[in-house]
Amino acid sequence: MSFLRNCWYVAAWADELNDGMLARTIIGDAVLFWRADNRLFAVADRCPHRLAPLSMGLVDGGTVRCGYHGLVFNGASGACTHNPHGSATSVLSIRTYLCLERHGIVWIWMGDPERADPDDVPAMSFIDNAGEHAFSKGYMYTAAGHKLLEDNILDLSHADYLHPDTLGGGSITRSRAKVEERGHTVFVRWFTSGEPAIPIFRPEMPDPMMQTDMWTEVVWHPNGVMILRVGATPLGRAPEQGIDTWNAHIMTPETLTTSHYFYCNSRNYKTDDAAYNAAMAAGLRTAFEQEDKPMIEAQQRALGDAELFDLKPALLAIDNGSTRARRIYQRLVADEAAASSQRV
Amino acid sequence: MSFLRNCWYVAAWADELNDGMLARTIIGDAVLFWRADNRLFAVADRCPHRLAPLSMGLVDGGTVRCGYHGLVFNGASGACTHNPHGSATSVLSIRTYLCLERHGIVWIWMGDPERADPDDVPAMSFIDNAGEHAFSKGYMYTAAGHKLLEDNILDLSHADYLHPDTLGGGSITRSRAKVEERGHTVFVRWFTSGEPAIPIFRPEMPDPMMQTDMWTEVVWHPNGVMILRVGATPLGRAPEQGIDTWNAHIMTPETLTTSHYFYCNSRNYKTDDAAYNAAMAAGLRTAFEQEDKPMIEAQQRALGDAELFDLKPALLAIDNGSTRARRIYQRLVADEAAASSQRV
Amino acid sequence: MSFLRNCWYVAAWADELNDGMLARTIIGDAVLFWRADNRLFAVADRCPHRLAPLSMGLVDGGTVRCGYHGLVFNGASGACTHNPHGSATSVLSIRTYLCLERHGIVWIWMGDPERADPDDVPAMSFIDNAGEHAFSKGYMYTAAGHKLLEDNILDLSHADYLHPDTLGGGSITRSRAKVEERGHTVFVRWFTSGEPAIPIFRPEMPDPMMQTDMWTEVVWHPNGVMILRVGATPLGRAPEQGIDTWNAHIMTPETLTTSHYFYCNSRNYKTDDAAYNAAMAAGLRTAFEQEDKPMIEAQQRALGDAELFDLKPALLAIDNGSTRARRIYQRLVADEAAASSQRV
Repeated sequence: MSFLRNCWYVAAWADELNDGMLARTIIGDAVLFWRADNRLFAVADRCPHRLAPLSMGLVDGGTVRCGYHGLVFNGASGACTHNPHGSATSVLSIRTYLCLERHGIVWIWMGDPERADPDDVPAMSFIDNAGEHAFSKGYMYTAAGHKLLEDNILDLSHADYLHPDTLGGGSITRSRAKVEERGHTVFVRWFTSGEPAIPIFRPEMPDPMMQTDMWTEVVWHPNGVMILRVGATPLGRAPEQGIDTWNAHIMTPETLTTSHYFYCNSRNYKTDDAAYNAAMAAGLRTAFEQEDKPMIEAQQRALGDAELFDLKPALLAIDNGSTRARRIYQRLVADEAAASSQRV
Repeated sequence: MSFLRNCWYVAAWADELNDGMLARTIIGDAVLFWRADNRLFAVADRCPHRLAPLSMGLVDGGTVRCGYHGLVFNGASGACTHNPHGSATSVLSIRTYLCLERHGIVWIWMGDPERADPDDVPAMSFIDNAGEHAFSKGYMYTAAGHKLLEDNILDLSHADYLHPDTLGGGSITRSRAKVEERGHTVFVRWFTSGEPAIPIFRPEMPDPMMQTDMWTEVVWHPNGVMILRVGATPLGRAPEQGIDTWNAHIMTPETLTTSHYFYCNSRNYKTDDAAYNAAMAAGLRTAFEQEDKPMIEAQQRALGDAELFDLKPALLAIDNGSTRARRIYQRLVADEAAASSQRV
Repeated sequence: MSFLRNCWYVAAWADELNDGMLARTIIGDAVLFWRADNRLFAVADRCPHRLAPLSMGLVDGGTVRCGYHGLVFNGASGACTHNPHGSATSVLSIRTYLCLERHGIVWIWMGDPERADPDDVPAMSFIDNAGEHAFSKGYMYTAAGHKLLEDNILDLSHADYLHPDTLGGGSITRSRAKVEERGHTVFVRWFTSGEPAIPIFRPEMPDPMMQTDMWTEVVWHPNGVMILRVGATPLGRAPEQGIDTWNAHIMTPETLTTSHYFYCNSRNYKTDDAAYNAAMAAGLRTAFEQEDKPMIEAQQRALGDAELFDLKPALLAIDNGSTRARRIYQRLVADEAAASSQRV
């Protein structure tokens, strides 16, 4: 099993590049990122001369100089622009990757540059529109493969058991999920009517334990981007009268068994409340780092290098969304492999 | 080379279950142990749904609930008794293991349940009969295979070099061992007449350096249980007039190269002396943890994943007991493999 | 790819044996070294009985006693001189290695003893002749293969980028290296005329930034010993009127991907200045430990277990010396393999 290449991956939060270079491995490729003159650069983090990581060198505007023997490369074209020891021949060029910044995120295209279309970046305008005190985000390196992490979001019933006092409360389990494939995406929606809101929402209701209408929606994209809308309103009232949150959970593979986990949260209430915002950020971090991460890393350790489905796990109704996502991903990877072998 | 399955393994000291669940891997199987209502439970530590360790969940009486999606399993039958997301079908059952508590030890049967006979648990009534201040025990996780650890006990001449000031003194080396196979067990006996007792026994003699009769006996069982009797009496006196200790050294494989090492000691002298008992416990712990463990782990590192005998070590007379034990073990494993292939 | 065996390897600085035994793995062999009665001993660090490391035992004069079961071995012949458990047969002997002390270094011959000629030890009289305050040395365990480390010295242009404020300054890059094969050695010489000296030499010139003649010479030996002469004199003056340093950089393989790195430095100026000597020692240690080592270990991580040349790195003119050295080494190893198979 390998990775999908022709898609936009989330490489970093844009502000991760504010203090200089960032070295990060994406689907197995060591990549060096930096920003200069408001332009992003992403190149193979490996000098073609002696394999030294270019991230141990220096960037200067749009160029990077290897720290070992001084070769200089253009970050956009990959061409060697200066070889202090001879001519800068084309043999000395490095691979560059298309990248762009949108929604406060650095996106990288790992596949065939001719197939890259910036319009394929999933829309996340909620990030752009969120006020300073109505938004938080995080990055979590995780020793588990992207599929296990995506499974976790595509089956949010886990919140009732893993986060019972914050994000769960039993309502997701009681409401059966609606699952739809929409093109290459998977849409999952849970809806409950007549239950108290999930614990973190209760203080926002007129009466904490009152009956509500509550919705949770996930859209999964094959590049590991999942966008979640989670909200509640007093029973029978319009959604607009309730509270709503927009979230992203994004799993970018480092290797088959390790991932870069990016997450963020925005909301439509207490939007100027810095203290609440900080508490929300801390609470989510705790849930993801202390509850999700240990469980999923334990799953990965139990799996070792095996694929989950090769071990014939028992399938439940709640696996509908994740199973569909895994099939779509598998089909897309197979399509890429077929296209690649035809070209040869 | 694989493990013997049809035998009772020591899984834990019984009091290790006093504070809740215990997750421990036995001959490669991840097992979850707990006690409820005076009954022991041992089940596969892996949810059949997504392979999450059940030890990250909760036990309630004789059931365990997975911490990830809430499936509940009966610890005795392994049946799923509650699936919050659908019906609890037989596909959701988990493996359970026979286990029993005897001699303050949790025993587990890793093989065919129909062949399990509680009478096959090696008798260790000395544990039951030992007074509070005449008994100590310990557990030592060891990065070495069970065979190297069993070799160490089956050739106690090592005490003369590795523990010269406590358990050795040269007498074991000078007395040639008597070795007998008794069914599937190996019996080794050293006896010296006219030598001072081993260092830790000397203060118990009428005169520390006086001549004694001294005996050391080991009975090895294929499940890694070794029972030792070690004592001394002034030369020519009856054993009953001397001092005697009963000990167990038990090696339960975790993997081929790591082991659970359980040990205990009881004695027939100073049986009410709490301070002496504590000093004895500390002394034995030091010998095993600081002297035996580093040496045997170094052996394992030198071996890597190889079998000792594949590297053609030089055999000495002192290896008689361990060589016989290795052969019996190999034959029993081969018998199990043959029986298993006939059944298929 | 394997190691050259028929050569003298540097095992240790002689004073590393002043405080007792030294266990060190050389080209994959675990070896135990010690000195007694002004004689050196080097034996396989593995008891033939149970593979226990003899370095966990005790040396007594020219013998070593295994700490596990007391077998005693003669460090010169390897014969077992005492088996407390039976006769000391020839089957119990251990491998011994020829070794000798010269230039303050313990040398070991890992190959066929009949081919060992002490005259093949590279001459390093500069070590013997250096005054106490004109000499420093160090040892640096390095998680990189010996070839990458030798490449680093055979192409000193790296100093201009990795050590720009101390050992480099651009002059090595600007002067093209002269490379010669001399028998089984490789000689590389850089010479600049009219440039300021390298930074650490500038304070020693009549005027720091004055024009100089500057020389850097490396002689590489297939056993990983590289001898460097680096010096400078005011432009047009005789070398004898300038300053000169003699250095050794020695890479002894532990495994294919880890090395023992020994280095030393002597000089012809400020030879009685203890403070300067200490500052020079500290400066070199910083350069090697903080600048070279991280870069070369990063190269090795990028390589994994692959050979550099199998990944088709781009070759530059500066790789001339290292490429020749790699070819000579490869040829010598192939010759050894051929000779060994003929003998069989």
